[in-house]
Amino acid sequence: MTARSSTDPARVIPEATVARLPVYLRALTALADTGIRTCSSEDLATAAGVNSAKLRKDLSYLGSYGTRGVGYDVDYLRYQIAREIGVTQDWPVVIVGIGNLGHALANYSGFRSRGFRVVALLDADPSLSGEIVAGVAVRPFDELEAIVHDHDVAIGVIATPASAAQDVADRMVAIGITSILNFAPSVLSVPEGVDVRKVDLSIELQILAYHEQRKANGAEAAAPVAPVADGGAA
Amino acid sequence: MTARSSTDPARVIPEATVARLPVYLRALTALADTGIRTCSSEDLATAAGVNSAKLRKDLSYLGSYGTRGVGYDVDYLRYQIAREIGVTQDWPVVIVGIGNLGHALANYSGFRSRGFRVVALLDADPSLSGEIVAGVAVRPFDELEAIVHDHDVAIGVIATPASAAQDVADRMVAIGITSILNFAPSVLSVPEGVDVRKVDLSIELQILAYHEQRKANGAEAAAPVAPVADGGAA
Repeated sequence: MTARSSTDPARVIPEATVARLPVYLRALTALADTGIRTCSSEDLATAAGVNSAKLRKDLSYLGSYGTRGVGYDVDYLRYQIAREIGVTQDWPVVIVGIGNLGHALANYSGFRSRGFRVVALLDADPSLSGEIVAGVAVRPFDELEAIVHDHDVAIGVIATPASAAQDVADRMVAIGITSILNFAPSVLSVPEGVDVRKVDLSIELQILAYHEQRKANGAEAAAPVAPVADGGAA
Repeated sequence: MTARSSTDPARVIPEATVARLPVYLRALTALADTGIRTCSSEDLATAAGVNSAKLRKDLSYLGSYGTRGVGYDVDYLRYQIAREIGVTQDWPVVIVGIGNLGHALANYSGFRSRGFRVVALLDADPSLSGEIVAGVAVRPFDELEAIVHDHDVAIGVIATPASAAQDVADRMVAIGITSILNFAPSVLSVPEGVDVRKVDLSIELQILAYHEQRKANGAEAAAPVAPVADGGAA
Protein backbone atom coordinates (compact mmCIF):
# COMPACT_ATOMS: atom_id res chain seq x y z
CA MET A 1 0.00 0.00 0.00
CA THR A 2 1.31 3.45 -0.82
CA ALA A 3 1.69 6.22 1.76
CA ARG A 4 -1.67 7.94 1.97
CA SER A 5 -0.52 11.31 3.34
CA SER A 6 2.55 13.18 4.40
CA THR A 7 1.47 13.91 7.97
CA ASP A 8 3.84 13.00 10.77
CA PRO A 9 2.83 9.57 12.07
CA ALA A 10 4.40 10.34 15.46
CA ARG A 11 2.07 13.25 16.21
CA VAL A 12 -1.01 11.87 17.97
CA ILE A 13 -4.24 13.83 18.08
CA PRO A 14 -6.61 13.03 20.96
CA GLU A 15 -9.51 10.77 19.93
CA ALA A 16 -12.12 13.32 21.02
CA THR A 17 -10.47 15.91 18.75
CA VAL A 18 -10.39 13.42 15.86
CA ALA A 19 -14.14 12.90 16.32
CA ARG A 20 -14.77 16.66 16.08
CA LEU A 21 -12.66 17.30 12.97
CA PRO A 22 -15.39 16.02 10.57
CA VAL A 23 -17.86 18.33 12.34
CA TYR A 24 -15.57 21.34 11.78
CA LEU A 25 -15.12 20.29 8.17
CA ARG A 26 -18.88 20.18 7.67
CA ALA A 27 -19.32 23.60 9.31
CA LEU A 28 -16.53 25.13 7.17
CA THR A 29 -18.10 23.69 4.01
CA ALA A 30 -21.43 25.27 4.98
CA LEU A 31 -19.69 28.64 5.54
CA ALA A 32 -17.84 28.38 2.20
CA ASP A 33 -21.10 27.52 0.43
CA THR A 34 -22.57 30.83 1.59
CA GLY A 35 -19.56 32.74 0.23
CA ILE A 36 -17.76 33.33 3.54
CA ARG A 37 -13.95 33.50 3.08
CA THR A 38 -12.69 34.13 6.62
CA CYS A 39 -14.24 33.39 10.01
CA SER A 40 -13.44 33.97 13.67
CA SER A 41 -13.03 31.03 16.02
CA GLU A 42 -16.32 32.15 17.63
CA ASP A 43 -18.17 31.99 14.29
CA LEU A 44 -16.80 28.57 13.51
CA ALA A 45 -17.41 27.30 17.05
CA THR A 46 -21.05 28.42 16.85
CA ALA A 47 -21.49 26.79 13.44
CA ALA A 48 -19.97 23.55 14.77
CA GLY A 49 -21.82 23.62 18.09
CA VAL A 50 -18.77 23.61 20.39
CA ASN A 51 -17.24 26.29 22.59
CA SER A 52 -14.55 28.43 21.00
CA ALA A 53 -11.80 27.57 23.51
CA LYS A 54 -12.20 23.88 22.68
CA LEU A 55 -12.19 24.69 18.96
CA ARG A 56 -8.94 26.68 19.20
CA LYS A 57 -7.33 23.90 21.23
CA ASP A 58 -8.45 21.28 18.68
CA LEU A 59 -7.14 23.29 15.74
CA SER A 60 -3.83 23.89 17.50
CA TYR A 61 -3.10 20.16 17.06
CA LEU A 62 -3.18 20.81 13.32
CA GLY A 63 -0.85 23.80 13.70
CA SER A 64 -3.74 26.14 12.84
CA TYR A 65 -3.94 29.26 14.94
CA GLY A 66 -5.69 31.73 12.62
CA THR A 67 -4.57 35.31 12.14
CA ARG A 68 -5.11 37.85 14.91
CA GLY A 69 -7.95 40.25 14.00
CA VAL A 70 -8.73 38.28 10.81
CA GLY A 71 -9.50 34.76 11.97
CA TYR A 72 -9.23 31.62 9.90
CA ASP A 73 -9.05 31.39 6.12
CA VAL A 74 -12.04 29.14 5.45
CA ASP A 75 -10.69 27.39 2.35
CA TYR A 76 -7.23 26.82 3.78
CA LEU A 77 -8.56 25.48 7.07
CA ARG A 78 -10.90 23.13 5.15
CA TYR A 79 -7.89 21.85 3.27
CA GLN A 80 -5.83 21.40 6.44
CA ILE A 81 -8.58 19.46 8.21
CA ALA A 82 -9.45 17.35 5.15
CA ARG A 83 -5.77 16.46 4.73
CA GLU A 84 -5.43 15.61 8.42
CA ILE A 85 -8.47 13.32 8.34
CA GLY A 86 -7.32 11.85 5.06
CA VAL A 87 -10.36 12.75 3.00
CA THR A 88 -8.40 14.69 0.39
CA GLN A 89 -7.55 11.28 -1.03
CA ASP A 90 -9.72 8.59 -2.56
CA TRP A 91 -11.10 5.86 -0.26
CA PRO A 92 -12.59 2.87 -2.04
CA VAL A 93 -15.40 1.42 0.10
CA VAL A 94 -17.54 -1.72 -0.16
CA ILE A 95 -21.05 -1.99 1.30
CA VAL A 96 -22.25 -5.46 2.32
CA GLY A 97 -25.99 -5.98 2.84
CA ILE A 98 -28.20 -4.27 0.29
CA GLY A 99 -31.54 -4.09 2.10
CA ASN A 100 -33.23 -0.75 2.76
CA LEU A 101 -30.29 0.59 4.74
CA GLY A 102 -27.75 -0.59 2.17
CA HIS A 103 -29.79 1.09 -0.57
CA ALA A 104 -29.95 4.29 1.47
CA LEU A 105 -26.18 4.22 2.10
CA ALA A 106 -25.41 3.51 -1.57
CA ASN A 107 -27.47 6.58 -2.50
CA TYR A 108 -26.07 8.77 0.28
CA SER A 109 -24.47 11.83 -1.30
CA GLY A 110 -22.37 12.62 1.75
CA PHE A 111 -19.96 9.73 1.17
CA ARG A 112 -18.73 10.66 -2.30
CA SER A 113 -18.37 14.35 -1.42
CA ARG A 114 -15.92 13.37 1.38
CA GLY A 115 -13.71 11.13 -0.73
CA PHE A 116 -15.47 7.81 -0.09
CA ARG A 117 -16.13 5.98 -3.35
CA VAL A 118 -18.47 3.01 -3.22
CA VAL A 119 -16.73 0.50 -5.52
CA ALA A 120 -19.03 -2.45 -4.84
CA LEU A 121 -22.34 -3.48 -3.30
CA LEU A 122 -22.52 -7.06 -2.08
CA ASP A 123 -25.36 -9.20 -0.84
CA ALA A 124 -25.65 -12.87 0.08
CA ASP A 125 -29.09 -13.03 -1.58
CA PRO A 126 -28.46 -14.14 -5.18
CA SER A 127 -31.80 -12.69 -6.33
CA LEU A 128 -30.37 -9.18 -5.81
CA SER A 129 -27.36 -9.74 -8.07
CA GLY A 130 -27.24 -7.42 -11.03
CA GLU A 131 -29.62 -4.84 -9.57
CA ILE A 132 -28.18 -1.36 -10.15
CA VAL A 133 -28.20 0.94 -7.10
CA ALA A 134 -26.83 4.47 -7.49
CA GLY A 135 -25.01 3.37 -10.62
CA VAL A 136 -23.33 0.35 -9.01
CA ALA A 137 -24.36 -3.28 -9.66
CA VAL A 138 -25.11 -5.56 -6.69
CA ARG A 139 -22.76 -8.57 -6.70
CA PRO A 140 -22.68 -11.88 -4.80
CA PHE A 141 -20.98 -11.74 -1.40
CA ASP A 142 -18.59 -14.46 -2.62
CA GLU A 143 -16.88 -11.90 -4.83
CA LEU A 144 -15.73 -9.84 -1.82
CA GLU A 145 -12.16 -11.05 -1.93
CA ALA A 146 -11.62 -10.33 -5.63
CA ILE A 147 -13.18 -6.87 -5.29
CA VAL A 148 -11.13 -5.92 -2.25
CA HIS A 149 -7.91 -6.93 -4.01
CA ASP A 150 -8.81 -5.30 -7.33
CA HIS A 151 -9.70 -1.95 -5.76
CA ASP A 152 -7.29 -1.93 -2.78
CA VAL A 153 -10.28 -1.53 -0.43
CA ALA A 154 -9.36 -0.71 3.17
CA ILE A 155 -12.82 0.18 4.53
CA GLY A 156 -15.87 -2.09 4.66
CA VAL A 157 -19.41 -1.05 5.58
CA ILE A 158 -21.74 -3.65 7.12
CA ALA A 159 -25.48 -3.04 6.64
CA THR A 160 -26.67 -6.62 7.10
CA PRO A 161 -29.06 -7.92 9.78
CA ALA A 162 -27.41 -8.40 13.19
CA SER A 163 -27.29 -12.18 12.76
CA ALA A 164 -24.97 -11.96 9.72
CA ALA A 165 -22.69 -9.13 10.84
CA GLN A 166 -20.00 -11.12 12.65
CA ASP A 167 -19.58 -13.57 9.74
CA VAL A 168 -19.24 -10.67 7.32
CA ALA A 169 -16.72 -8.96 9.60
CA ASP A 170 -14.67 -12.18 9.92
CA ARG A 171 -14.55 -12.53 6.15
CA MET A 172 -13.57 -8.87 5.71
CA VAL A 173 -10.76 -9.17 8.25
CA ALA A 174 -9.51 -12.42 6.70
CA ILE A 175 -9.00 -10.76 3.33
CA GLY A 176 -7.26 -7.66 4.65
CA ILE A 177 -9.87 -5.02 5.41
CA THR A 178 -8.63 -3.05 8.44
CA SER A 179 -11.51 -0.60 9.08
CA ILE A 180 -15.16 -1.55 9.46
CA LEU A 181 -18.18 0.71 9.79
CA ASN A 182 -20.94 -1.35 11.39
CA PHE A 183 -24.60 -0.34 11.02
CA ALA A 184 -25.88 -3.72 12.21
CA PRO A 185 -27.25 -3.69 15.78
CA SER A 186 -24.59 -6.06 17.11
CA VAL A 187 -21.18 -5.90 18.77
CA LEU A 188 -18.37 -7.17 16.54
CA SER A 189 -15.31 -9.01 17.73
CA VAL A 190 -12.21 -8.27 15.63
CA PRO A 191 -8.46 -8.77 16.10
CA GLU A 192 -6.15 -5.99 17.26
CA GLY A 193 -5.20 -3.61 14.47
CA VAL A 194 -8.70 -3.60 12.98
CA ASP A 195 -10.79 -0.48 13.73
CA VAL A 196 -14.53 -0.83 14.10
CA ARG A 197 -16.90 2.12 14.40
CA LYS A 198 -20.52 1.46 15.16
CA VAL A 199 -23.35 3.70 14.08
CA ASP A 200 -26.27 3.52 16.49
CA LEU A 201 -29.18 5.37 14.92
CA SER A 202 -30.94 5.65 18.29
CA ILE A 203 -28.19 7.54 20.16
CA GLU A 204 -29.17 10.96 18.82
CA LEU A 205 -32.83 10.17 19.50
CA GLN A 206 -31.94 9.42 23.14
CA ILE A 207 -30.14 12.78 23.43
CA LEU A 208 -33.30 14.49 22.13
CA ALA A 209 -35.39 12.55 24.64
CA TYR A 210 -33.21 13.83 27.48
CA HIS A 211 -33.82 17.44 26.47
CA GLU A 212 -37.49 16.82 25.75
CA GLN A 213 -37.92 15.40 29.23
CA ARG A 214 -36.22 18.44 30.74
CA LYS A 215 -38.48 20.79 28.76
CA ALA A 216 -41.52 18.93 30.10
CA ASN A 217 -40.13 19.10 33.66
CA GLY A 218 -39.16 22.75 33.34
CA ALA A 219 -42.68 23.63 32.25
CA GLU A 220 -43.97 21.95 35.39
CA ALA A 221 -41.27 23.10 37.78
CA ALA A 222 -43.86 24.82 39.98
CA ALA A 223 -45.89 21.63 40.34
CA PRO A 224 -45.05 19.21 43.16
CA VAL A 225 -43.01 16.21 41.99
CA ALA A 226 -42.36 12.94 43.74
CA PRO A 227 -38.85 12.43 45.16
CA VAL A 228 -36.45 10.42 42.98
CA ALA A 229 -36.28 7.57 45.46
CA ASP A 230 -39.94 6.79 44.83
CA GLY A 231 -39.24 5.86 41.23
CA GLY A 232 -41.46 8.65 39.92
CA ALA A 233 -43.06 8.48 36.49
CA ALA A 234 -40.74 5.69 35.36
CA MET B 1 -48.34 17.53 28.86
CA THR B 2 -47.74 15.49 32.01
CA ALA B 3 -44.44 15.45 33.88
CA ARG B 4 -42.23 12.86 32.20
CA SER B 5 -39.87 12.10 35.09
CA SER B 6 -39.25 12.98 38.66
CA THR B 7 -35.65 14.16 38.20
CA ASP B 8 -34.75 17.59 39.50
CA PRO B 9 -35.07 20.05 36.61
CA ALA B 10 -32.54 22.39 38.21
CA ARG B 11 -29.65 19.90 38.03
CA VAL B 12 -27.88 20.38 34.72
CA ILE B 13 -25.70 17.63 33.27
CA PRO B 14 -22.96 18.76 30.82
CA GLU B 15 -23.89 18.19 27.18
CA ALA B 16 -20.86 15.93 26.59
CA THR B 17 -21.98 13.71 29.47
CA VAL B 18 -25.53 13.60 28.10
CA ALA B 19 -24.12 12.41 24.76
CA ARG B 20 -22.24 9.56 26.52
CA LEU B 21 -25.15 8.31 28.62
CA PRO B 22 -26.75 6.37 25.71
CA VAL B 23 -23.33 4.78 25.06
CA TYR B 24 -23.10 3.63 28.69
CA LEU B 25 -26.66 2.34 28.49
CA ARG B 26 -25.81 0.30 25.39
CA ALA B 27 -22.66 -1.12 27.06
CA LEU B 28 -24.60 -2.04 30.22
CA THR B 29 -27.29 -3.76 28.13
CA ALA B 30 -24.58 -5.79 26.38
CA LEU B 31 -23.09 -6.77 29.78
CA ALA B 32 -26.53 -7.73 31.15
CA ASP B 33 -27.22 -9.80 28.02
CA THR B 34 -24.17 -11.92 28.81
CA GLY B 35 -25.38 -12.49 32.37
CA ILE B 36 -23.06 -10.03 34.15
CA ARG B 37 -24.67 -8.59 37.31
CA THR B 38 -21.96 -6.25 38.66
CA CYS B 39 -19.08 -4.49 36.94
CA SER B 40 -16.16 -2.28 37.88
CA SER B 41 -15.85 1.21 36.43
CA GLU B 42 -12.86 -0.11 34.44
CA ASP B 43 -14.97 -2.91 32.88
CA LEU B 44 -17.76 -0.54 31.96
CA ALA B 45 -15.33 2.10 30.68
CA THR B 46 -13.67 -0.48 28.42
CA ALA B 47 -17.04 -1.71 27.12
CA ALA B 48 -18.10 1.88 26.40
CA GLY B 49 -14.76 2.96 24.92
CA VAL B 50 -14.01 5.82 27.35
CA ASN B 51 -11.48 6.16 30.15
CA SER B 52 -12.63 5.14 33.60
CA ALA B 53 -11.99 8.52 35.26
CA LYS B 54 -14.34 10.17 32.77
CA LEU B 55 -16.91 7.43 33.29
CA ARG B 56 -16.86 7.88 37.08
CA LYS B 57 -17.18 11.64 36.70
CA ASP B 58 -20.10 11.23 34.28
CA LEU B 59 -21.93 8.80 36.57
CA SER B 60 -21.37 11.07 39.58
CA TYR B 61 -23.81 13.55 37.95
CA LEU B 62 -26.45 10.84 38.33
CA GLY B 63 -25.50 10.26 41.95
CA SER B 64 -24.03 6.86 41.04
CA TYR B 65 -20.76 6.03 42.71
CA GLY B 66 -20.79 2.24 42.76
CA THR B 67 -19.81 0.20 45.82
CA ARG B 68 -16.16 -0.02 46.88
CA GLY B 69 -14.75 -3.45 46.04
CA VAL B 70 -17.97 -4.50 44.26
CA GLY B 71 -18.49 -1.94 41.53
CA TYR B 72 -21.78 -1.04 39.94
CA ASP B 73 -24.98 -3.07 39.98
CA VAL B 74 -25.57 -3.47 36.23
CA ASP B 75 -29.38 -3.55 36.31
CA TYR B 76 -29.74 -0.68 38.75
CA LEU B 77 -27.28 1.51 36.84
CA ARG B 78 -29.16 0.74 33.60
CA TYR B 79 -32.35 1.87 35.28
CA GLN B 80 -30.74 5.05 36.64
CA ILE B 81 -29.33 6.03 33.25
CA ALA B 82 -32.48 5.11 31.35
CA ARG B 83 -34.54 7.20 33.76
CA GLU B 84 -32.12 10.12 33.50
CA ILE B 85 -32.26 10.09 29.69
CA GLY B 86 -36.00 9.61 29.79
CA VAL B 87 -36.14 6.31 27.88
CA THR B 88 -37.97 4.49 30.67
CA GLN B 89 -41.05 6.22 29.32
CA ASP B 90 -42.86 5.96 26.00
CA TRP B 91 -41.86 8.42 23.26
CA PRO B 92 -44.23 8.53 20.30
CA VAL B 93 -42.26 9.41 17.16
CA VAL B 94 -43.26 10.22 13.57
CA ILE B 95 -41.00 9.58 10.57
CA VAL B 96 -41.43 11.83 7.53
CA GLY B 97 -39.98 10.68 4.19
CA ILE B 98 -40.43 6.98 3.47
CA GLY B 99 -37.74 6.33 0.87
CA ASN B 100 -34.99 3.77 1.48
CA LEU B 101 -33.76 5.50 4.62
CA GLY B 102 -37.29 5.96 5.98
CA HIS B 103 -37.95 2.26 5.38
CA ALA B 104 -34.71 1.35 7.14
CA LEU B 105 -35.55 3.60 10.12
CA ALA B 106 -39.10 2.23 10.39
CA ASN B 107 -37.62 -1.29 10.55
CA TYR B 108 -34.82 -0.34 12.96
CA SER B 109 -35.16 -2.48 16.08
CA GLY B 110 -33.04 -0.13 18.18
CA PHE B 111 -35.76 2.53 18.40
CA ARG B 112 -38.50 0.47 19.99
CA SER B 113 -36.14 -1.21 22.46
CA ARG B 114 -35.22 2.27 23.83
CA GLY B 115 -38.78 3.51 24.30
CA PHE B 116 -39.26 5.16 20.91
CA ARG B 117 -42.53 4.06 19.33
CA VAL B 118 -43.07 4.93 15.68
CA VAL B 119 -46.74 5.98 15.62
CA ALA B 120 -46.83 7.17 12.00
CA LEU B 121 -44.94 7.16 8.71
CA LEU B 122 -45.66 10.09 6.42
CA ASP B 123 -44.72 10.84 2.85
CA ALA B 124 -45.67 13.59 0.41
CA ASP B 125 -45.91 11.05 -2.43
CA PRO B 126 -49.56 9.91 -2.55
CA SER B 127 -48.59 6.69 -4.34
CA LEU B 128 -46.97 5.43 -1.11
CA SER B 129 -50.10 5.88 1.01
CA GLY B 130 -51.39 2.69 2.52
CA GLU B 131 -48.11 0.77 2.13
CA ILE B 132 -47.39 -1.11 5.36
CA VAL B 133 -43.81 -0.77 6.66
CA ALA B 134 -42.88 -2.61 9.86
CA GLY B 135 -46.56 -2.89 10.72
CA VAL B 136 -47.34 0.81 10.26
CA ALA B 137 -49.25 2.25 7.29
CA VAL B 138 -47.73 5.13 5.29
CA ARG B 139 -50.03 8.18 5.40
CA PRO B 140 -50.13 11.47 3.46
CA PHE B 141 -47.92 14.23 4.87
CA ASP B 142 -51.05 16.41 5.18
CA GLU B 143 -52.17 14.27 8.10
CA LEU B 144 -49.15 15.29 10.21
CA GLU B 145 -51.07 17.76 12.36
CA ALA B 146 -53.87 15.35 13.25
CA ILE B 147 -51.38 12.56 14.07
CA VAL B 148 -49.20 14.77 16.26
CA HIS B 149 -52.21 15.91 18.25
CA ASP B 150 -53.78 12.45 18.54
CA HIS B 151 -50.59 10.81 19.80
CA ASP B 152 -49.03 13.74 21.70
CA VAL B 153 -45.89 13.44 19.53
CA ALA B 154 -42.94 15.53 20.69
CA ILE B 155 -40.20 14.11 18.43
CA GLY B 156 -40.16 14.13 14.63
CA VAL B 157 -37.67 12.33 12.39
CA ILE B 158 -36.90 13.78 8.94
CA ALA B 159 -35.68 11.30 6.31
CA THR B 160 -36.64 13.30 3.21
CA PRO B 161 -34.30 14.57 0.49
CA ALA B 162 -32.37 17.72 1.49
CA SER B 163 -34.61 19.93 -0.66
CA ALA B 164 -37.74 19.09 1.37
CA ALA B 165 -36.24 19.04 4.87
CA GLN B 166 -36.71 22.72 5.83
CA ASP B 167 -40.36 22.73 4.75
CA VAL B 168 -41.01 19.60 6.77
CA ALA B 169 -39.23 21.09 9.80
CA ASP B 170 -41.25 24.32 9.52
CA ARG B 171 -44.48 22.35 9.45
CA MET B 172 -43.38 20.22 12.43
CA VAL B 173 -42.49 23.30 14.48
CA ALA B 174 -45.76 25.05 13.54
CA ILE B 175 -47.81 22.21 14.99
CA GLY B 176 -45.85 21.89 18.22
CA ILE B 177 -43.04 19.37 17.69
CA THR B 178 -40.10 20.52 19.82
CA SER B 179 -37.40 17.94 18.97
CA ILE B 180 -36.28 17.02 15.45
CA LEU B 181 -33.86 14.31 14.37
CA ASN B 182 -32.63 15.25 10.89
CA PHE B 183 -31.17 12.62 8.57
CA ALA B 184 -31.40 14.88 5.49
CA PRO B 185 -28.05 16.32 4.39
CA SER B 186 -29.07 19.92 5.09
CA VAL B 187 -28.83 22.46 7.90
CA LEU B 188 -32.23 23.30 9.42
CA SER B 189 -33.22 26.67 10.78
CA VAL B 190 -35.62 26.43 13.74
CA PRO B 191 -36.80 28.85 16.45
CA GLU B 192 -35.33 28.87 19.95
CA GLY B 193 -36.70 26.13 22.18
CA VAL B 194 -36.70 23.55 19.39
CA ASP B 195 -33.87 21.00 19.55
CA VAL B 196 -32.43 19.63 16.32
CA ARG B 197 -29.92 16.77 16.16
CA LYS B 198 -28.38 15.91 12.84
CA VAL B 199 -27.16 12.46 11.90
CA ASP B 200 -24.31 12.59 9.40
CA LEU B 201 -23.67 9.07 8.19
CA SER B 202 -20.22 10.02 6.89
CA ILE B 203 -18.76 11.27 10.20
CA GLU B 204 -17.86 7.80 11.47
CA LEU B 205 -16.41 6.94 8.08
CA GLN B 206 -14.16 10.00 8.30
CA ILE B 207 -12.93 8.91 11.74
CA LEU B 208 -12.05 5.50 10.25
CA ALA B 209 -10.23 7.21 7.38
CA TYR B 210 -8.11 9.15 9.87
CA HIS B 211 -6.97 5.93 11.55
CA GLU B 212 -6.57 4.10 8.25
CA GLN B 213 -4.30 6.87 7.03
CA ARG B 214 -2.21 6.64 10.18
CA LYS B 215 -1.90 2.87 9.81
CA ALA B 216 -0.66 3.35 6.25
CA ASN B 217 1.79 5.99 7.43
CA GLY B 218 2.94 3.93 10.39
CA ALA B 219 3.65 0.97 8.13
CA GLU B 220 5.81 3.25 6.03
CA ALA B 221 7.38 5.27 8.81
CA ALA B 222 10.85 4.19 7.73
CA ALA B 223 10.31 5.46 4.19
CA PRO B 224 11.13 9.11 3.41
CA VAL B 225 8.03 11.30 3.33
CA ALA B 226 7.62 14.81 1.95
CA PRO B 227 7.31 17.61 4.52
CA VAL B 228 3.75 18.70 5.32
CA ALA B 229 4.28 22.15 3.81
CA ASP B 230 4.66 20.59 0.35
CA GLY B 231 1.07 19.39 0.36
CA GLY B 232 2.09 15.76 0.17
CA ALA B 233 -0.14 13.11 -1.31
CA ALA B 234 -3.19 15.37 -1.27
